[in-house]
Amino acid sequence: MTDWQDRFSRQAKRAIPSAIRALASFPRAADTIPFGPGEPDASLFPIEPLRNVLCGILDDVSLARGALQYGPSEGDLLLRERICTRMALLGVACHPDNVLLTNGSQQALHLVSQAFVDPYSTVLVQSPTYPGALQVFLTHGARLAAVSSDVTRSALIYAMSTFQNPTVVSLSLVQRQDLVDLARSLDSILVEDDPYEVLRYEGEALPSLLSIDIGQRSIEDVRTIYLGTFSKSIAPGLRVGWAVGPKIVIEKLTLLKQIDDLQASSFAQAVLIRLLAQGVEPFAAPIQATYRERRDRMAEALRTEFGSRGAWNVPEGGFFFWLTLPPEVDTARMLQIAAQVGVTYVPGVAFTHDGSGSNRLRLSFSSVDPDRVAEGVRRLAAAYDAYRT
Amino acid sequence: MTDWQDRFSRQAKRAIPSAIRALASFPRAADTIPFGPGEPDASLFPIEPLRNVLCGILDDVSLARGALQYGPSEGDLLLRERICTRMALLGVACHPDNVLLTNGSQQALHLVSQAFVDPYSTVLVQSPTYPGALQVFLTHGARLAAVSSDVTRSALIYAMSTFQNPTVVSLSLVQRQDLVDLARSLDSILVEDDPYEVLRYEGEALPSLLSIDIGQRSIEDVRTIYLGTFSKSIAPGLRVGWAVGPKIVIEKLTLLKQIDDLQASSFAQAVLIRLLAQGVEPFAAPIQATYRERRDRMAEALRTEFGSRGAWNVPEGGFFFWLTLPPEVDTARMLQIAAQVGVTYVPGVAFTHDGSGSNRLRLSFSSVDPDRVAEGVRRLAAAYDAYRT
Repeated sequence: MTDWQDRFSRQAKRAIPSAIRALASFPRAADTIPFGPGEPDASLFPIEPLRNVLCGILDDVSLARGALQYGPSEGDLLLRERICTRMALLGVACHPDNVLLTNGSQQALHLVSQAFVDPYSTVLVQSPTYPGALQVFLTHGARLAAVSSDVTRSALIYAMSTFQNPTVVSLSLVQRQDLVDLARSLDSILVEDDPYEVLRYEGEALPSLLSIDIGQRSIEDVRTIYLGTFSKSIAPGLRVGWAVGPKIVIEKLTLLKQIDDLQASSFAQAVLIRLLAQGVEPFAAPIQATYRERRDRMAEALRTEFGSRGAWNVPEGGFFFWLTLPPEVDTARMLQIAAQVGVTYVPGVAFTHDGSGSNRLRLSFSSVDPDRVAEGVRRLAAAYDAYRT
Repeated sequence: MTDWQDRFSRQAKRAIPSAIRALASFPRAADTIPFGPGEPDASLFPIEPLRNVLCGILDDVSLARGALQYGPSEGDLLLRERICTRMALLGVACHPDNVLLTNGSQQALHLVSQAFVDPYSTVLVQSPTYPGALQVFLTHGARLAAVSSDVTRSALIYAMSTFQNPTVVSLSLVQRQDLVDLARSLDSILVEDDPYEVLRYEGEALPSLLSIDIGQRSIEDVRTIYLGTFSKSIAPGLRVGWAVGPKIVIEKLTLLKQIDDLQASSFAQAVLIRLLAQGVEPFAAPIQATYRERRDRMAEALRTEFGSRGAWNVPEGGFFFWLTLPPEVDTARMLQIAAQVGVTYVPGVAFTHDGSGSNRLRLSFSSVDPDRVAEGVRRLAAAYDAYRT
């Protein structure tokens, strides 16, 4: 019998399962309320507009054939133009040559890491941060360190600028400028991951890291690469995201994309081109209204049901609350009790490169029935009380 | 200004553009007949069945929500079951746990290479072979050698078993058994890439390498990984292919896929599940009939218009004719003349890891207007005659 483990490449050996998936295997009550998954609510997907657009494509032989045929590796020009329009609203003037379409922003992250990370390169990350990014960098052999650490060299700096996962905090203007300056002083590439920008419920958006980096420069002279996605504004099942940066970088990422899987789905691109004729905004407004209400429900439930057991901020956007419990609480261990009493969440340790964050946890309000949120938080409080005794 | 070239990773530096694309930039006549691209003919895409299936999905709220939401990294169970049904027709008994859905078979190839190829590993390839495979292996740092070479160790053996690209030759039963034995004697992984199996116009299919490897074993004990795709049977724009192998390998490939881009498109999978309720066969028959006729047209045109200038076999399937010209002819140089007189093809050198094949060329009949094939071959003959004088 073949010893497969022995045959896997060094890169394959470095690939580790998501901490979230590993933690999701506890036995749980039958009617468990899942505050773990960060999925959008499927009832908000624009099914009727999608149906109209799809019928329009499939009723037009020429459009239909194009949507089902191979297309360019960089993506359809029309959709890249739509993305430039979106980027302009985020303060970034760019050209379709500055845009690569990817299979969601996860693939953009993978391609950027593939392009810039060698084994033993240093990658600076926010701590805590998105676990899928940690997986990508570790697979490519990176040494991870916190952005705040005192390193003198790094290949990449990875940051979520707005409604960061999991802290839901947005970087202040000063922090943004500091990150752009840090990238320059470390001679590093700055990756701005911005999947949640469209999910703003209140407050004013700050300039993106890329727009700050552009400043008086041309986009061809920046060192920031911006990653966006339609997974939150439209639907994740289409698997379309994008990367924006200097043309020379986009060309290299396009080549890597071509070698990886030729191109993003022509079909999904054809759908998005027509769906986004008026931009993302018509789809954003109802989504924002619904999630804002859910955020308010969870804020109220936490205030009344969880009270002084922990601390949190009410987020201005995004999908999550980020709770800090007393330092001696281990939220990974507490999760076993929580699952037994019928509620789940993601323990803080899943988001860190160094095992910190053990007294924190992430609650998602995005896809839980709003009428069950209060009950879920009551169960969480009960699990906490049981854990403490 | 940032020196980007200096910052790219070793892997990114090893990524080289497709030789085909580089050769496609010659100036050419306005009405050029393109025998280069290996695309399916878009007029054969099953637009009406796709329309019915899509309406069915989008009219059913529950189906629609599922098709637009995140899904499992390994792919939808129902579609993996459909693929098991297809594999059974190819002589392979497997379970959905043995199947991973990918973005076309290009991504399956990338994932297999990522899983097994370290820098300086040896990968054995057929010579000539599919240029996209050479790109993948080179990006991962492989040393390439011909399957026929006298190596004592290899990480991977890559072979197209049926209607190989570009030679259109299928391996004989003896050659198949020899390859399976070679993989075992070299203690290597065997990758069977089989995108064209559905495009058979005559003759009997031989057992796949995977089915030979299974023989009296269980699929869990093979060292062959089979790659398939819906790009030829249905449409490439959906970007769905698959890998089949031992469960332990599929689990590792699934993890790498998750880190690369989370999952294949839920939407494309939902479409294929319903479209393939009766299998691939209802779609294969009309496609085979059309391409068979085109093959016959090109065979006739070559016989009458190109004559004794070169040698070729009439393929039993696939999209191509593979022409051998006198040894002193350089088909890459001849392409400049051909483009001027209004015909293009892919020179043989684009398909080899060692620069051989310079007197060969590939003609594709899949997507050229059948009524222009004879004129295209006449132009090719004229280009050849002009090149020789």
